[in-house]
Amino acid sequence: MSNHNYHMEFSFDIMMTSIKNLRLQCEFFWGNILNNKLMDITHYFDIMLIEKSRLDPIQENARKLQHTIEAWRKDEISEDVFMKKTKVVCSQQKNFQLQVQCREHMVHIDEPQLNGGDDTAITPVEMLLCAYASCLEVSWIVYASVFDAKVDSITVEIEGEMDRRYILGKKEYPARYNKIDVVFNIKSEESMKKLNHILERVQKTCGVGGSLHPDIEKTFSIRLID
Amino acid sequence: MSNHNYHMEFSFDIMMTSIKNLRLQCEFFWGNILNNKLMDITHYFDIMLIEKSRLDPIQENARKLQHTIEAWRKDEISEDVFMKKTKVVCSQQKNFQLQVQCREHMVHIDEPQLNGGDDTAITPVEMLLCAYASCLEVSWIVYASVFDAKVDSITVEIEGEMDRRYILGKKEYPARYNKIDVVFNIKSEESMKKLNHILERVQKTCGVGGSLHPDIEKTFSIRLID
Repeated sequence: MSNHNYHMEFSFDIMMTSIKNLRLQCEFFWGNILNNKLMDITHYFDIMLIEKSRLDPIQENARKLQHTIEAWRKDEISEDVFMKKTKVVCSQQKNFQLQVQCREHMVHIDEPQLNGGDDTAITPVEMLLCAYASCLEVSWIVYASVFDAKVDSITVEIEGEMDRRYILGKKEYPARYNKIDVVFNIKSEESMKKLNHILERVQKTCGVGGSLHPDIEKTFSIRLID
Repeated sequence: MSNHNYHMEFSFDIMMTSIKNLRLQCEFFWGNILNNKLMDITHYFDIMLIEKSRLDPIQENARKLQHTIEAWRKDEISEDVFMKKTKVVCSQQKNFQLQVQCREHMVHIDEPQLNGGDDTAITPVEMLLCAYASCLEVSWIVYASVFDAKVDSITVEIEGEMDRRYILGKKEYPARYNKIDVVFNIKSEESMKKLNHILERVQKTCGVGGSLHPDIEKTFSIRLID
């Protein structure tokens, strides 16, 4: 080995050790940052949407529910225990600016200037679509993890269509969306078969989607992005 | 007239003048504050919820719509012109913290800690009720004015009930609210007959309510408050 080669190899070793150290430092750093504790980095790169530990309370809830169902089947308890109540209170602030309180949170509503409002927030019918899009996204986050799908990111795009003639108050033009198109932009290397399987589950367990009128024509599509 | 009586009458005159001045000053002050211009105070006290001028754009929209309908009936234009499209995009920020963009506005969603979230905002199913409550409130504001009802204030309280067994994904427990109770807290001297008449119109033109599943049991009640 020439002096020159030795020098090269030595430098290469130092570089590799540095890179390895840097990688270890990065893993430690990101592990701490992302999880507030040291985590299994490999596992993190498998499940990008959420830490698995975030599903622990959900699984715990499901276990408790299962026990409650067994007790109910044995006639030990009333069906009422399954009923979860949610309360909101809406009040007017000024003009069409409203605020709605739900637990300790507050959301705001307004109308655009074209409808006499001040356009400080979204409208109620827009909020309906926001509720739907976010409900689908939450379900995707949960079920991508449950089904161990390698999903890097997902956004939910919704376009709703309403027939403006509903303000006539006539039966043939009901005050509702007539069409809602949902597109899931998914960054993932999973097969479309697997993604469609998850989508099926997502649709079944989306509490907002299930609360929508069956006459609303709905389409769902997955758009794979790079 | 005794001296004493004269003095009394004189004092009374001064007092009345003072009250009248005070009232004029108040009218001027509130007129400016409430409308950014001097307004007809009497009219304001008739219609408490919103300035009538705020309904002008709505009436203008209705007039335009009427013209469009006439043109459509004459086969001059396609039905597509009545279709109003609304778009929202939901993306994940961190864990279950989502943001939904709609026009230039943004709303936030999260899950409570019991579901693995950080509880920084309301949940999607809670947002559905917020959308409904605010849609009903907007309609009340509009129709109380349209029907010249003397309504001082109104808040909309909604309680939704969901059967938690929906997470089992079984047909008998669909993922939806099974019951929604709506209470309108109204401060008004109008008759219940008039208020119920407005309520009927409000229900008919509420785009969120119309978009809800007909199997959701809904109740509506008016609670008059002092």
